[in-house]
Amino acid sequence: MAEPSFSLRTPDDDNQPRRICDNCGFVAYENPKIVVGSVVRHEGAILLCRRAIEPRRGFWTIPAGYLELNETPEEGARREAREEAEAELAISRLLAVYSVPRISQVQLIYRAGLKQPGFAAGPESLEVKLFRFEEIPWNELAFPSVHWALGHDAEAEAGAPPAPFANPAGETGSHMPDGGRVAPGDA
Amino acid sequence: MAEPSFSLRTPDDDNQPRRICDNCGFVAYENPKIVVGSVVRHEGAILLCRRAIEPRRGFWTIPAGYLELNETPEEGARREAREEAEAELAISRLLAVYSVPRISQVQLIYRAGLKQPGFAAGPESLEVKLFRFEEIPWNELAFPSVHWALGHDAEAEAGAPPAPFANPAGETGSHMPDGGRVAPGDA
Repeated sequence: MAEPSFSLRTPDDDNQPRRICDNCGFVAYENPKIVVGSVVRHEGAILLCRRAIEPRRGFWTIPAGYLELNETPEEGARREAREEAEAELAISRLLAVYSVPRISQVQLIYRAGLKQPGFAAGPESLEVKLFRFEEIPWNELAFPSVHWALGHDAEAEAGAPPAPFANPAGETGSHMPDGGRVAPGDA
Repeated sequence: MAEPSFSLRTPDDDNQPRRICDNCGFVAYENPKIVVGSVVRHEGAILLCRRAIEPRRGFWTIPAGYLELNETPEEGARREAREEAEAELAISRLLAVYSVPRISQVQLIYRAGLKQPGFAAGPESLEVKLFRFEEIPWNELAFPSVHWALGHDAEAEAGAPPAPFANPAGETGSHMPDGGRVAPGDA
């Protein structure tokens, strides 16, 4: 079997270059991807998962991942919590819409609670734990948007109006809040 | 050159079937798509475009289209208004997040005004016009979500809190509000 071989060319009916297969002409349209996730609160604490996979293996994140075909964002957010934390969520509302244009991501982050008590590390997690806000391992968070979401969730908890939050002013998700660089491909 | 030929198979490191090229093994991951658009108000009237392309050629829509790689949603919404209505937008806020799971779309709809006066039909529009709310051609709107967005924008104009609206209860974008069916592939 031949290896995949793509060249960047502009299809006849288009106005920008796309990846086109040299062998069969298949146009691999690449689109931005939608990440869906949740800040999950249970008895005043927040559920975090320690990643068992790259990127950012060993770092803590909220349950989140790519939306699949034919899913609503809420369904996707519940599925990710099931996969990563074996948790059944009750979603209350959309917390934030973030965009990370460098890696062509739009993230929809929800506020949620546990529908039934109980959670455990799924195959993509090393461990899953509840943290009180003051115990959150801020220096071991996986992605800038996890940092943003936890901060915005605290603002929402304190009574901020129900608009969705967006990227902090001037932030594009390329750096952690302490200035640390995020590896290409990370969110 | 061979024709594209894909089979549905589950890659080794995955848990669902994907389209895989029979010739070279390329995995064509298909992801939900992000539509970005705007309800544009100018001097109390709303800007609509009559579609010059299928689907729903001849029907009226708000300026909207697919988010491109490395764009923020706001940049994409402004680009679409430029392409379809030759209009420069000033976006004020996120109005609504809709999902149309049947066609794997998530739509981010913004509220906007004209940054400078003037607009014209771009190549994808037959005409572009300002409508007072009571003049909107409700029976000639292109997609259910255009109907939702215009209604939600009116609610926002009347002072509804700045949460983003979502799909009307029970609606998945498969029918126009009058019960009319939307052709597969339409949003």
